[in-house]
Amino acid sequence: MASLIVPDVVPSPREDAEKIRNAVQGFGTHEKALISVIGHRNAAQRQQIRQAYQELYNEDLIKRLESELTGDLEKAVYRWMHDPVDRDAILAHAALKNLSQNYKVIIEIACAQSPDELFAVKRAYQNRYKYSLEEDVASHSSGDLRKILVALVSTHRYDGSEVNASLASSEANILHDAIKQKVFNHEDVIRILGTRSKAQLNATFNRYRDVHGASITKELVSDPADEIAAVLQTVVRCIRHPAKYFEKMVGDALKKTGTDEDDLTRVIVRHAERNLEEIKELYYKRNSVPLDKAVAKETSGDYKTFLLTLLGCAGN
Amino acid sequence: MASLIVPDVVPSPREDAEKIRNAVQGFGTHEKALISVIGHRNAAQRQQIRQAYQELYNEDLIKRLESELTGDLEKAVYRWMHDPVDRDAILAHAALKNLSQNYKVIIEIACAQSPDELFAVKRAYQNRYKYSLEEDVASHSSGDLRKILVALVSTHRYDGSEVNASLASSEANILHDAIKQKVFNHEDVIRILGTRSKAQLNATFNRYRDVHGASITKELVSDPADEIAAVLQTVVRCIRHPAKYFEKMVGDALKKTGTDEDDLTRVIVRHAERNLEEIKELYYKRNSVPLDKAVAKETSGDYKTFLLTLLGCAGN
Repeated sequence: MASLIVPDVVPSPREDAEKIRNAVQGFGTHEKALISVIGHRNAAQRQQIRQAYQELYNEDLIKRLESELTGDLEKAVYRWMHDPVDRDAILAHAALKNLSQNYKVIIEIACAQSPDELFAVKRAYQNRYKYSLEEDVASHSSGDLRKILVALVSTHRYDGSEVNASLASSEANILHDAIKQKVFNHEDVIRILGTRSKAQLNATFNRYRDVHGASITKELVSDPADEIAAVLQTVVRCIRHPAKYFEKMVGDALKKTGTDEDDLTRVIVRHAERNLEEIKELYYKRNSVPLDKAVAKETSGDYKTFLLTLLGCAGN
Repeated sequence: MASLIVPDVVPSPREDAEKIRNAVQGFGTHEKALISVIGHRNAAQRQQIRQAYQELYNEDLIKRLESELTGDLEKAVYRWMHDPVDRDAILAHAALKNLSQNYKVIIEIACAQSPDELFAVKRAYQNRYKYSLEEDVASHSSGDLRKILVALVSTHRYDGSEVNASLASSEANILHDAIKQKVFNHEDVIRILGTRSKAQLNATFNRYRDVHGASITKELVSDPADEIAAVLQTVVRCIRHPAKYFEKMVGDALKKTGTDEDDLTRVIVRHAERNLEEIKELYYKRNSVPLDKAVAKETSGDYKTFLLTLLGCAGN
């Protein structure tokens, strides 16, 4: 469930655009007034506001907001104001700068949403950057990381629920043998994780746990020395239980000294209209603290207000 | 230009279905009557006939034709009667049985048509077989062939006409170095051929020829001992000039002792509604014999009649 709160009666895009204009014009910006509008509109409504703003003031709203805001708030608002597939294309493009650090962003986009959603992001990426995501990921990475990431962004997985039990069994064994021998870059491991449907992979992961007595996620984390093991673990977690993966990510981001605002912003902005309620519930189960309280503690100012608004805590 | 001849006034799908019913019912099949209908209808019209036939006789037309016809004619009609994307899915699936022999079919589907056409075939494949083309190609091949084929069927290439000249130059050098050192399976070779847009690749191939004094196609054929060189050459030819590639393929098929009916049927059936006229022109330029005359010489019976009909030679 989404955490975003949209009022029952939404003002017209023109009224919203005018309100935003008042917030950004003149000396200083009234961030709270801005957030009170955009923090309560869904993706389609935000696009309509952007269009109305362009028509009224002959100016691109996102560019204006970029020039008015700074720091974490600017980044968060910039990402929020884009259409979800464009946002993912932008996130993927930004991650290219340092893929060995940012590979998680690519894996999230490739594995934690449906094949059709990934394809829409790939189309948006091509429209925006005039290159394919595949070629850009390939030319910004190397070695095993490249093999895995290119496979993940390229494949259009089958999205059906059919499962082949004997295949799950044989491929669980292939994965287990490779992990046991620490050959994490085995071409069959990349083939299986890179091409099989999510339903099939989940059956394979279940089979792995049932036969080999430990979950594949645990066995992959047991080798922190191997970077590729960590990459594969991210893939498995994004396929197995995306909400749990994001809950853990947001928790880790908050725990870091100084907080990892990039991860925090990304998870909240990307999921406010999707399943942030589920992520909040999982967070509470694990930490016995509501996610909004933890976010409020680790952030400040208008950035905090904006995140809490997206978390569905308007009266923060 | 297509070679298929569709009459100016086309009978209703119902009339066509009735005519086909008369041709297949009772003792023996009147192949010529059948061909006179289906050999002059485009893909949309054939689907309407199939639907009308189903409604009239509560029977799948393609299944009926399969049971009535035999040999090369049955195969050709079966392929012709399917919608083009379904047909490619069927061809790809059939090619899996022996990919080291049939890899050309996969490369043709992946490289000789547009990225969107490939994507449509991938969707049709998933609907039909409940697996992705990617995973089936991956699990039916191994080694270098797998690396190349999986990359080709996976990527959704950028389809724009923009070309980066300095990239073309640097990647032409990468390709040349790898080919010179006979490292045909170099991961950068697969990355470049597997992910770059066709416009970019053609600029790279041009640059290769200009700087290194020989075309990449020729340099790849100079090593007949290496199977992967031949695979890469097929990729380059399908990207560089698909019509020329298919003209050569149909010429080779006709020259073989006994004729390669699989290749011959595939090229004619797949291109009758696309650019078979261009392929015919290229064939005539190279051989000084019209393609239909060559086909007539090497084939016989109703199979010959059907191919000549698709070639636009109705009065054969």
